[in-house]
Amino acid sequence: MKEKEKVTILKGNIVYSKNPKEFTIYEHGYLVCQDGKTEGIYQTLPFKLGGTPIRDFGDCLIIPGLVDLHIHAPQYAFRGLGMDMELLDWLEANTFPEEARYEDLEYAKKAYGIFADNMRRSAVTRACIFATIHRPATMLLMDRMEKTGLDTYIGKVNMDRNCPDYLREDTRESAEATLSWLKEVKKRNYQNTRPILTPRFTPSCTDELMEELKKLQIRYDLPVQSHLSENPGEVSWVKELCPWSEFYGDAYDRFGLFGADCPTIMAHCVYSGDKELERIRENGVMIAHCPESNMNLSSGIAPVRRFLEMGIKTGLGSDVAGGSTENMFRAMAHAVQASKLRWRLADETLAPLTAEEVFYMGTKGGGEFFGKVGSFEDGYDFDAVVLDDSRLAGPGPLDIRSRLERMIYLADEREIRAKYVKGREIDLS
Amino acid sequence: MKEKEKVTILKGNIVYSKNPKEFTIYEHGYLVCQDGKTEGIYQTLPFKLGGTPIRDFGDCLIIPGLVDLHIHAPQYAFRGLGMDMELLDWLEANTFPEEARYEDLEYAKKAYGIFADNMRRSAVTRACIFATIHRPATMLLMDRMEKTGLDTYIGKVNMDRNCPDYLREDTRESAEATLSWLKEVKKRNYQNTRPILTPRFTPSCTDELMEELKKLQIRYDLPVQSHLSENPGEVSWVKELCPWSEFYGDAYDRFGLFGADCPTIMAHCVYSGDKELERIRENGVMIAHCPESNMNLSSGIAPVRRFLEMGIKTGLGSDVAGGSTENMFRAMAHAVQASKLRWRLADETLAPLTAEEVFYMGTKGGGEFFGKVGSFEDGYDFDAVVLDDSRLAGPGPLDIRSRLERMIYLADEREIRAKYVKGREIDLS
Repeated sequence: MKEKEKVTILKGNIVYSKNPKEFTIYEHGYLVCQDGKTEGIYQTLPFKLGGTPIRDFGDCLIIPGLVDLHIHAPQYAFRGLGMDMELLDWLEANTFPEEARYEDLEYAKKAYGIFADNMRRSAVTRACIFATIHRPATMLLMDRMEKTGLDTYIGKVNMDRNCPDYLREDTRESAEATLSWLKEVKKRNYQNTRPILTPRFTPSCTDELMEELKKLQIRYDLPVQSHLSENPGEVSWVKELCPWSEFYGDAYDRFGLFGADCPTIMAHCVYSGDKELERIRENGVMIAHCPESNMNLSSGIAPVRRFLEMGIKTGLGSDVAGGSTENMFRAMAHAVQASKLRWRLADETLAPLTAEEVFYMGTKGGGEFFGKVGSFEDGYDFDAVVLDDSRLAGPGPLDIRSRLERMIYLADEREIRAKYVKGREIDLS
Repeated sequence: MKEKEKVTILKGNIVYSKNPKEFTIYEHGYLVCQDGKTEGIYQTLPFKLGGTPIRDFGDCLIIPGLVDLHIHAPQYAFRGLGMDMELLDWLEANTFPEEARYEDLEYAKKAYGIFADNMRRSAVTRACIFATIHRPATMLLMDRMEKTGLDTYIGKVNMDRNCPDYLREDTRESAEATLSWLKEVKKRNYQNTRPILTPRFTPSCTDELMEELKKLQIRYDLPVQSHLSENPGEVSWVKELCPWSEFYGDAYDRFGLFGADCPTIMAHCVYSGDKELERIRENGVMIAHCPESNMNLSSGIAPVRRFLEMGIKTGLGSDVAGGSTENMFRAMAHAVQASKLRWRLADETLAPLTAEEVFYMGTKGGGEFFGKVGSFEDGYDFDAVVLDDSRLAGPGPLDIRSRLERMIYLADEREIRAKYVKGREIDLS
């Protein structure tokens, strides 16, 4: 196949993470993509590549595409709004009424069109996305995201209790709708879009529904995404709802929806205790740390330093519309800022996060959920974002590390000159 | 004078604060400016104004200009950088070496040019600005800011102890340089730019210098700006340096530089105790709350709810480069976010701040330092910013309050269609 043999060479200041401790930097290097994967990075182009056209981005930064492990597409419509409640009230007052609107395909078309366009123009190349309970609107979202060229997991949400009538699924109905959604997804033969099982969270899913979902998980070999230990009220509620559970995460684990035999993302984990964190580590659950959401919904601050020290897989999520923006640079900055406040106000034994650590989490850390993603090491999927930071230039020159640190605090889509996913260039218009 | 009789009429969705509790909103109203002041707001234009041209901004929002009570112009060059230290180390490692460069007027010209341009294009109409110890560079900054049309206070910094030799002034030299700076400012007859006395903070100023500055304060009837109780290490240090002081703020008050007989801004007040807050209130000191800086430098979170309950005058500051941006909408969002984390982690008796409260602080609250500024009430200086929020529009219509709330989380200079200061339109190009 011609497409597969294609070689792309980008030139610029290449920065990426092999580990959370340091950046790997090549000034004015050549980043070579072959068959959609990173073939290598060179300061001088090897002889064998002579004659291949080079796309020279001058003094731009070239970084791996950013990974958003947790975002709610239907909530994008009310991002930056209604920021005056805690989680459970916020769901009731803001989230559920908005999500109900996605029964109307015309509305969904409009709203998901804006969402997909803005995701396309962002620095994000990979995302794990919650839709709503509605099968047709979820298909529409998958179609739209497929067209962007971004590589995503998208989940039809399940909920059969503790939500308004207009959004509550009957248990059997929820399982059946999920099955027919999965069948329909299969037919579409997407290149970039995959389904992910998405029980909203324990309070909205009966034990019976969880059992049904496990059957589907096995039958379709699906990954799972959900929420965990975000808010104290939510944690106590789960204790009441599942008196048999050892801890909140155990209520997922009992149904085989907690990483042990299926890749799983759990968002938040602000209040995960020792046992829960130990189980997360053992089971290989990946945590989506969503710092802005945890601020906006007054949830608290997750002990991310602890996650890293324990060797728990950790990435970042925007959690729109708990978070206000799809701009994952902001999630990185918020992660550093939140960790500093946690250190100061709650626990001086956990050192604040560094720029290196949050960049790692926003690229290779979260990227692991997608395979070899989020780095420019050899053989990694070629997801790249080219940043022209001249808008934010100062009076003197800066080294590459400093320029990247500044991007974490100040970059938005205006800085993006080009974006590639799996070797293919994304239309940013 | 013709200029003085000029009437300007803007049409749009007018939003402003009379108090911290609610927005005052006129949908598709007429905002009338006469002689540089707000003459009134009308739903139907009165007969007497018939024939005056109307500038119709359609569905745009029109808000008062934002007020930045605390920003360091020389630090703008390293905004978003070096965010890995607490205050005192950060001053030593990042701030002092950069500030030293402003001895070089060529460098200052470049750096302050960028600063002034970006301030001009921001939603800020008023600011209280720290320069450096250097008189010529401070004059250059004042010249540049004067040209922007923004209305500002700018201070030559004083420091005669506890800083590197290359930045330490001799006590007498510091007082003399300040005097000749003030004389020079007088000669320039600025329309928009005023001097403000700027002892950096107690650790950098000897008692002798403070006494000299008080003489200048009286002689030139100057306002004062400085830092107060930002970091625990700083607070203990002041206790050592001034064993005679009752509390940190008392070390300014003993020299008559703490509000009692001169308008005074103190930035931060994260660790102000009961007595200090009581003195702040009694003396009418205005607090510049700088939430992003307090996150970035791991300082902590100021008890802003307490300030408001006590009736302390409170505004917002970006505190660049403790803060990363001159965008005061971000300062508002950070203020809400920080207050929520403080409520959750430190003190549930102080309720989080609302969108209404932070908008008030960022306009009328801080504006009070400048006179009748930061509101569209009759007779207030006509500082206005026109925001076109269509870039951030969603699938359905939103009410005006929601649109403003979204601006607080997501607006940047791209939204600004026009800006007026004291009735004069600012060039945004």
